[in-house]
Amino acid sequence: MTPSDVIRAKRDGQKLTADVVRSFVDRFVRGEVADYQMSALCMAVYLRGLDDAETWALTEAMLHSGRVLDLSSVPGQKVDKHSTGGVGDKVSICLAPLVAAAGVKVPMISGRGLGHTGGTLDKLEAIPGFDVRLPVERFVAQVAEVGCALVGQTDDLAPADRRMYALRDVTATVESIPLITASILSKKLAEGIDALVLDVKVGRGAFMESRARARALARSLVRCGKRGGKKVVAILTSMDEPLGRAVGNALETAEAIDVLRGGGPRDLVELTLVFGAEMLVLGGVAKSIAQARSLLSSRIADGTALEKLRTIVRAQGGDPAAVDDPSRMGTAPVIRPVSAPKRGFVRSLDARAIGLAAMSLGAGRRRAEDAIDPAVGIVLEKKIGDAVHPGEPLARVHAKTEADAERAAEEVAGAYAFAARRAHPARLVLERIS
Amino acid sequence: MTPSDVIRAKRDGQKLTADVVRSFVDRFVRGEVADYQMSALCMAVYLRGLDDAETWALTEAMLHSGRVLDLSSVPGQKVDKHSTGGVGDKVSICLAPLVAAAGVKVPMISGRGLGHTGGTLDKLEAIPGFDVRLPVERFVAQVAEVGCALVGQTDDLAPADRRMYALRDVTATVESIPLITASILSKKLAEGIDALVLDVKVGRGAFMESRARARALARSLVRCGKRGGKKVVAILTSMDEPLGRAVGNALETAEAIDVLRGGGPRDLVELTLVFGAEMLVLGGVAKSIAQARSLLSSRIADGTALEKLRTIVRAQGGDPAAVDDPSRMGTAPVIRPVSAPKRGFVRSLDARAIGLAAMSLGAGRRRAEDAIDPAVGIVLEKKIGDAVHPGEPLARVHAKTEADAERAAEEVAGAYAFAARRAHPARLVLERIS
Repeated sequence: MTPSDVIRAKRDGQKLTADVVRSFVDRFVRGEVADYQMSALCMAVYLRGLDDAETWALTEAMLHSGRVLDLSSVPGQKVDKHSTGGVGDKVSICLAPLVAAAGVKVPMISGRGLGHTGGTLDKLEAIPGFDVRLPVERFVAQVAEVGCALVGQTDDLAPADRRMYALRDVTATVESIPLITASILSKKLAEGIDALVLDVKVGRGAFMESRARARALARSLVRCGKRGGKKVVAILTSMDEPLGRAVGNALETAEAIDVLRGGGPRDLVELTLVFGAEMLVLGGVAKSIAQARSLLSSRIADGTALEKLRTIVRAQGGDPAAVDDPSRMGTAPVIRPVSAPKRGFVRSLDARAIGLAAMSLGAGRRRAEDAIDPAVGIVLEKKIGDAVHPGEPLARVHAKTEADAERAAEEVAGAYAFAARRAHPARLVLERIS
Repeated sequence: MTPSDVIRAKRDGQKLTADVVRSFVDRFVRGEVADYQMSALCMAVYLRGLDDAETWALTEAMLHSGRVLDLSSVPGQKVDKHSTGGVGDKVSICLAPLVAAAGVKVPMISGRGLGHTGGTLDKLEAIPGFDVRLPVERFVAQVAEVGCALVGQTDDLAPADRRMYALRDVTATVESIPLITASILSKKLAEGIDALVLDVKVGRGAFMESRARARALARSLVRCGKRGGKKVVAILTSMDEPLGRAVGNALETAEAIDVLRGGGPRDLVELTLVFGAEMLVLGGVAKSIAQARSLLSSRIADGTALEKLRTIVRAQGGDPAAVDDPSRMGTAPVIRPVSAPKRGFVRSLDARAIGLAAMSLGAGRRRAEDAIDPAVGIVLEKKIGDAVHPGEPLARVHAKTEADAERAAEEVAGAYAFAARRAHPARLVLERIS
């Protein structure tokens, strides 16, 4: 089939065979299928869909478009977590060392922030010296020795995904469930993992605003992962207000470290335990979620989880003293409170607006090439359901300049809405799909 | 709106405003909208459609992407004909001089053949010296003086259409009624015409195989042309078997010349009169179709139509003697009959298969860059409904080599099907839409 025959078949709602999908992706990577043909196919897929067999064929073709890591030399189950992205989502930073401290290997390849959502790599790089670009051999060795490595994607892992994503981003073909499924799984399976836990976020601050769409994506990811012979669990979690209190790179890393020290905001602690417990069960070191949670709690209580983070930081060239003194990650010159306008209760707190305010402070990127400032961000003092009194601080803006602080403070104030009676935040964990 | 906002809106079935459509096309022509964005939009349009206002906005944007000819200095109505393309369709070559001889100005810009269909330019170039690339000033002057010029599209007429068509051709987005409408009309309206007659072909040898689709295209063309302030008539005609008897460039031009001499096959003569009569009425030189047909017949009978062709050929650098001696257009070294296998009647004659056989002889192009041989082709001795006897010639193949002739003869034989009782060919003129 010529490229245009393949596009025509999908345009007309026909099912593509695995061979046809594989050959289209291979030819795209070799430059024999043009960008304008791939974008036309992506639009046809967006509007006509792919069934499970086609989605898996696409995932497999993208996975094998580059190097697939071989972690078979590392004993035990290798388990990773992936989040579809939210605001204030620093779970990976406390989760990975905690799970590794409990005995499951975590080979974690993360991304950078774009738009209103942050990225784990940017948060890790707030730690002075922390290097997220390990050569593959060091990555594999560190997973074997330390139990966890936290790195960025290299050019040779799933290159088809990177090129396809760049096209989808500018052709309005991002929000397609089969295309998202293939994109996430091709990258994650290239890590050589045995099992995967997925955090599919739902709400104003998430990629999927509706629960039905988030559920459809979660189911697609679980079904497709199973076709690939991997154990996959997906959990739908709320992303109406930011997770935790900190939004901004150094601030978030410090908050994640608090969790490992036995502190941290309740929602962040809870999600860390929810995902950590799933990973321990998938990794075979706990028989039940309850047993897993108790193991995780003891790893926090006895300090081994925090020590695991220090070891990882040291192994990746970072300053382990930053784990105990967050000010080493930099502090913003201007810290400005945002005052409550009246008495009442926080009814809503728009995660997307907070994410955009943090981005405009320099914590995130408008475009992929933008530089970020690790020290700036927002710390939320009040969240949904909290009582507020006039003049009391709702949040504190950490900024580079007074002007930045002023502008961000207005944006933050605008993200809050109040009610006379106490509202209850949405449940954090909405649904588990496996 | 960013390009991806425009694509997203159409993807989601929203209506695009004229401003949005115009700006997208303008930015595409300037290189600010990438090919992969245009192809994604074309796929979204293919699957979501455009309404009449959007189709006209697209037509107008494409029309104004380049030069629009000004024929206001030429007195009288300027009327052109366009065919969606078929096999053996040489109507333009006899129609244009005939209509010009009857007093209507015909500024005709034609295309080349591709795949199984031929192109008027290739047929005209069978006449030694005939130049289809006139500068615009000469084109306008010739329409004024001679009443007709027959040329190819220049790069500065509707460049958006040329670039969009090249993309659509390789991204399975050709067969979209609004995109075809905008493509045809933007090119035709760039000629500066007042009225247009459209031959929308239906059947095995046509672009539109179903009558319902052909009717939908015809209606779209008529409605959109009217929005542009032009008089437009569309006629659906059968293209199950080839038109006339000749398929191949010099053979077809010779057959068209026969029509001007008062001969020619009945179906070709009939279509020439049907389209010519519409053009005379639109051009204001006849009050009724009946009056127009009678005027056309007299222009054939008195030799003025043939003389008009000689004048056009001379004006465009061609050898006018070829009009009277077709052998000057070249003859094929091998002429091989294709014999009837049995006694009976021709039940069907696959126009597409005949077109492909002619293409493989060298009369057409597999790719746009292929060279063609004017002398080769096929002359059909038997058409649908004709009685045949075993051994009698069904057709004659005109080939460059014996091997070519052998192969084409088999293909031609395979295009015929027979029945014991006489079949009647489909009506030639199916429907008139205005």
